[in-house]
Amino acid sequence: MQRLRKPYLLFLGDVKDKLTAKTAFGLKDWCFDDVVGEWSLPGCSVTLGLARLSPREAAARGAGSIVVGIAPTGGTLPPHWVTELSKAADAGLDVVSGLHTRLTSFPELVQAASRGAVRLIDVRHSERTYGAASGRKRSGKRVLTVGTDCALGKKYTALALAKNLKKRGVAASFRATGQTGIMISGEGIAIDAVIADFIAGAAEHLSPDNAPDHWDVIEGQGSLFHPAYAGVTLGLLHGSQPDAIVLCHDPSRRTIDEYPDFPIPDLQVAIDDYLRAGRLTNPAIRCVGLSINSSSLSDADCAEYFRRLTAELGLPVCDPVRVGVDVLAAALLAP
Amino acid sequence: MQRLRKPYLLFLGDVKDKLTAKTAFGLKDWCFDDVVGEWSLPGCSVTLGLARLSPREAAARGAGSIVVGIAPTGGTLPPHWVTELSKAADAGLDVVSGLHTRLTSFPELVQAASRGAVRLIDVRHSERTYGAASGRKRSGKRVLTVGTDCALGKKYTALALAKNLKKRGVAASFRATGQTGIMISGEGIAIDAVIADFIAGAAEHLSPDNAPDHWDVIEGQGSLFHPAYAGVTLGLLHGSQPDAIVLCHDPSRRTIDEYPDFPIPDLQVAIDDYLRAGRLTNPAIRCVGLSINSSSLSDADCAEYFRRLTAELGLPVCDPVRVGVDVLAAALLAP
Repeated sequence: MQRLRKPYLLFLGDVKDKLTAKTAFGLKDWCFDDVVGEWSLPGCSVTLGLARLSPREAAARGAGSIVVGIAPTGGTLPPHWVTELSKAADAGLDVVSGLHTRLTSFPELVQAASRGAVRLIDVRHSERTYGAASGRKRSGKRVLTVGTDCALGKKYTALALAKNLKKRGVAASFRATGQTGIMISGEGIAIDAVIADFIAGAAEHLSPDNAPDHWDVIEGQGSLFHPAYAGVTLGLLHGSQPDAIVLCHDPSRRTIDEYPDFPIPDLQVAIDDYLRAGRLTNPAIRCVGLSINSSSLSDADCAEYFRRLTAELGLPVCDPVRVGVDVLAAALLAP
Repeated sequence: MQRLRKPYLLFLGDVKDKLTAKTAFGLKDWCFDDVVGEWSLPGCSVTLGLARLSPREAAARGAGSIVVGIAPTGGTLPPHWVTELSKAADAGLDVVSGLHTRLTSFPELVQAASRGAVRLIDVRHSERTYGAASGRKRSGKRVLTVGTDCALGKKYTALALAKNLKKRGVAASFRATGQTGIMISGEGIAIDAVIADFIAGAAEHLSPDNAPDHWDVIEGQGSLFHPAYAGVTLGLLHGSQPDAIVLCHDPSRRTIDEYPDFPIPDLQVAIDDYLRAGRLTNPAIRCVGLSINSSSLSDADCAEYFRRLTAELGLPVCDPVRVGVDVLAAALLAP
């Protein structure tokens, strides 16, 4: 499991639009208390509205890492960003990145990290191996967010649910399985980056034995209905042994994102298939509700859609952004 | 895809029992024409009954690789084996191993390979990356062996089926997904060693577009009912897009091997679950029969068991070792 050194200085490079800085905004939203400030290069037109601190100033205020909070085109780092990140390493900050290109592929950065005695951490890549899953039932409770497709709110839903549970005084931990989730949480496993044989084993490692009434809220990945990533989804489901799942869905999608020949499944079919697969490692698995990304719907259409879904599926329905996840938390805790 | 240089010299080290040399016996059985001889150290009490050739003699007769045909306890190489393999590298042979420990972790061997200008090939490990699966339907036909568990005949069944098809004059290729299969075939992908995100993508790569009446016979891995490896199995199923599956089963097993809490599924349930999952990338998928490892049954019990299965499931049933795979090949080719 990767563990990051908080608090963070968020690095924006010289990006020109907010979408490219999506990761930085996510970190500001979800781990505000772990962020000391932001830093950017001349020409950057995006700001998070946080204190502007140089790496040296941030280090002086106790920052542990500088986080590359942007996703530049091509997934690599422009040379002038490498120079700036090298200065941060020299100042004693770990450098954290979720880009495809590994930080260790830049000699300038490797040398600076050696001088500064800091780590270069690529959260997209898996830095260690895991054992095969044991299938052994673990103590504590687990909920996994699953989806009809990728990229429709599984991370957001899990984060919102963990926060909601904690507010209710329930012991809960968000368990990150993707790069942004790992940055937010400060730890986790990029589950799609582990060796195929050890997907379920890594998922077991991510969510160890815990107190009987503690909830691990596990960030889902991929979709059982995705022609490229279903293997990851199934291994994560089996290793997580969830007591409950929340199905995430975006009603504006008709086909799997970027796979126009693959239809989004019927919701009842999706629930049934996830439960059937999940019973292998937890026969008591149940679906506690749906998390809908309803950004494409008007208020009236959304209300009507939620009424219809609730009637058809007999399950609580919510949009975490629009109305929060109270109904999901309540369903999870219902005896 | 890994490609090995044939023909092989099979190396037996100084093993004392046949079971440890299982890989060498498998290679002798399945790619006899690609083997020039065997080589062993003083103290070895196992022989394959092949010509005994030193690495230098084998190289002179055109051998391309020396293959470590044994699985020593602990999965690593004893020092005196390393010395012998280094001599083979010096003599101009590629060194091929399926062990956990990488050949490149032995400096003596790396230096010899450099001197001999040969390759050190660890077929258990994946040496390259693959893209995400596209889900695009490929030309040609495909059959995948699947199982109720691991290690019950999926490789053997696929090899026997590919051989049977070729004897009938049908264009067919065995597609290897595990280490021994790769050694036999001379190429393939250790599918459980690829990065999780690319399981299905690697499976697509393994079995590219082909002539409309060509059959790829793909070696299955793991089992959908295995708590550790189902993710690999599902990704391989999706990427293979099989037109047909053969279900492999061992009636002597009641639970998943080494997982006593996980029962072997009912056969009809297993067939239904594989077909349901496989329909995602090939809606026309069908099960053409069962391949039974019946070594635990008497002739009479086996005949009775096969009669019962055929009646219950309405599918051809065979044991590839006992009676061959004629019924499977016939079912595959039936219009």
